[in-house]
Amino acid sequence: MRTVPPRSAGRLLYAQSGGVTAVINATAAGVIETARARGVPVYAARNGILGALREDLIDTSKDSRAAIAALRHTPGGAFGSCRYKLKSLEANQAEYARLIEVFRAHDIRWFLYNGGNDSADTALKISRLGKAMGYDIRCIGVPKTVDNDLAVTDCCPGFGSVAKYTAISTLEASLDVASMADTSTKVFILEVMGRHAGWIAAAAGLAGDGADAPPHIILFPENAFDEVAFLAKVKATVERVGWCTVVASEGVRNSAGQFLAEAGTRDAFGHAQLGGLAPVLAALVKEKLGYKYHWALPDYLQRSARHAASKVDAEQAYAVGKAAVDYALDGMNAVMPVIVRTSDAPYRWKILPTPLARIANREKKMPRGFIRRDGFGITAAARRYLAPLIRGEAPVPYGKDGLPAYVRLKNVAVTRKLEPFAP
Amino acid sequence: MRTVPPRSAGRLLYAQSGGVTAVINATAAGVIETARARGVPVYAARNGILGALREDLIDTSKDSRAAIAALRHTPGGAFGSCRYKLKSLEANQAEYARLIEVFRAHDIRWFLYNGGNDSADTALKISRLGKAMGYDIRCIGVPKTVDNDLAVTDCCPGFGSVAKYTAISTLEASLDVASMADTSTKVFILEVMGRHAGWIAAAAGLAGDGADAPPHIILFPENAFDEVAFLAKVKATVERVGWCTVVASEGVRNSAGQFLAEAGTRDAFGHAQLGGLAPVLAALVKEKLGYKYHWALPDYLQRSARHAASKVDAEQAYAVGKAAVDYALDGMNAVMPVIVRTSDAPYRWKILPTPLARIANREKKMPRGFIRRDGFGITAAARRYLAPLIRGEAPVPYGKDGLPAYVRLKNVAVTRKLEPFAP
Repeated sequence: MRTVPPRSAGRLLYAQSGGVTAVINATAAGVIETARARGVPVYAARNGILGALREDLIDTSKDSRAAIAALRHTPGGAFGSCRYKLKSLEANQAEYARLIEVFRAHDIRWFLYNGGNDSADTALKISRLGKAMGYDIRCIGVPKTVDNDLAVTDCCPGFGSVAKYTAISTLEASLDVASMADTSTKVFILEVMGRHAGWIAAAAGLAGDGADAPPHIILFPENAFDEVAFLAKVKATVERVGWCTVVASEGVRNSAGQFLAEAGTRDAFGHAQLGGLAPVLAALVKEKLGYKYHWALPDYLQRSARHAASKVDAEQAYAVGKAAVDYALDGMNAVMPVIVRTSDAPYRWKILPTPLARIANREKKMPRGFIRRDGFGITAAARRYLAPLIRGEAPVPYGKDGLPAYVRLKNVAVTRKLEPFAP
Repeated sequence: MRTVPPRSAGRLLYAQSGGVTAVINATAAGVIETARARGVPVYAARNGILGALREDLIDTSKDSRAAIAALRHTPGGAFGSCRYKLKSLEANQAEYARLIEVFRAHDIRWFLYNGGNDSADTALKISRLGKAMGYDIRCIGVPKTVDNDLAVTDCCPGFGSVAKYTAISTLEASLDVASMADTSTKVFILEVMGRHAGWIAAAAGLAGDGADAPPHIILFPENAFDEVAFLAKVKATVERVGWCTVVASEGVRNSAGQFLAEAGTRDAFGHAQLGGLAPVLAALVKEKLGYKYHWALPDYLQRSARHAASKVDAEQAYAVGKAAVDYALDGMNAVMPVIVRTSDAPYRWKILPTPLARIANREKKMPRGFIRRDGFGITAAARRYLAPLIRGEAPVPYGKDGLPAYVRLKNVAVTRKLEPFAP
């Protein structure tokens, strides 16, 4: 089958996939620095797997050691990411053939795909191409997602930092609300990411402990929204504490299973407003209880806030990148480096390889035992799990202009060798 | 008139007013530490002027040196703030009489009121009580407001930190959007505070410079919203850059003078949604241009983000507190310490006293020359003014739990001596 035999020891291709995080570039740094140390050149695919399909590749050797090191503290996806799921080999053989064509043309012998559930699935499919299409490619999945919903791994790189940002923001905004509550805002609602699982909302619970400490109410997508209980809890909190901080997961649904955000607010054109749960809850509080409210919806700010990243998270993100290269170069295939927790206190972890087949297309739910019985807060078990993940700071260097010194890579394109291909 | 002659050298009363900031407590630290060094005891009024009226006073001597020092890095208002404007002496003589009664009962000889325009007006009224009501009280206004709209002072403590937070957030979220634009979000809208003036939105402009750098569009309340020009600019930016970051001041109005936020989205009950300009703009972009969008509304997060505060801002906040005490104890009355810029580059500033009469009830607008001719960005003059204000970091100490070590004061109440009074 091999028409063009490799003339070198081969190259490693790295690609970022799905929603980016504050630390996915730390993984990229782990990948590139480790590969460089082992003498293997690294290409990156521009915009994830699409770059591989389009033969839109980046030669990472054109960026300096300092630039690659700076990826460790730069948020976003330095090579571009994508939302694109490969179909099965049967359903879209042309795409797989194209991938092999691109790999062969550029002597790609190792492919590292950095993403969530869907990306693990893509990585698994590609890992099987070697046998199916007669080209020797080893494929490693690299974990990443703020959603913290990958199977097997104890936590997902990216989650710890959004968790830390959310806990800090909850604490800070609550200090503000506490100051003003006598004559102004009594209820503050922070809407956080989490369409299917309440991991990020749960992390807000780390901002305080005890009935009077914020957040006073957490709303999880795991529970159907109970309007009566919610309003009663808001009222009781305001009457006892003087004010109330609510942290709500965007994915909160009513008992009919509809997203509350969509069931409520309509925009100027009558469309359901996405990402707008907070104003729906705020309006409810105002209508039924008469309290003055404020609400916040940090959206991308929460997952790009590298300036407030967790040290543990940044270290784990780097470590999975490093491990992925080692696994690939040591001959492994179809695995993902996962984080294994060996101790809660002191927190200890290590990286181990796990078959992608155990991870692809699965979703880790938050344990029921992490949500308090009343449904509005987290349990001691949740605290034990979450607390270590936001520990330690990973400060960014700041420029003289007062802004974080984030790097923009040159991203020099590799000369194309093939005909264009439209995925 | 004096029925109870003072038995001591007198006390200083400090109160916080209006919306709080990331650094108003640094001003409190400046006040308390300076007064302590000069041997003058400090009471704080709980919840601003209301605490003075209610005789709800806090003895700051009950909090340790370390606790007071920690105010320097703790956001929110440590003693509580309020939104409450004293009427004129003629309109509500009872309240002024009550203030004098409370001052006299607790031997308050100096009153420092830390706030914005309204608070400067309150401070001015109280400064005139001495003569009007025969009690020797000196009153100093202390500047604070994220709105940056106080007259005379070059800038307002609190603004530099929200400016820095906004510039950092714009930069970080833009790195995220840039990564995803190929297959996902193309337009990101960040809504910031600024009902009447675009100071905070303007500060977002520091995140980048040049036509292709974010933010690509800033919407100011100073300009009537031009839908056609806005959409054309969004479209041109997406076509040229691949994506577009918009920063919009909450106070943007249409040509009829209505807030765009209120003219658009209605909540589930048909009420106009306040603070919801971003979803209105996002819906417009989607409807007219078809681009996928995300939007963020950080609300209180922006003004309480002490973890990302500006060093210059934190220093100025402390300095105005210190100066206010010195002015008061040195016999001044009816003045405010203001920040005078003596040089742009290198940035140099000093604190000088200015009569409250020049500040009370005035509003500093953003100069027209700070907004670019096309209306969608800031000028070089704006950069010269804004850039120094976000320079330098003022890191917070973090606890082992990974959260900023913010202080909660004991806030021990002073024993009441008077009958209750309901303001």
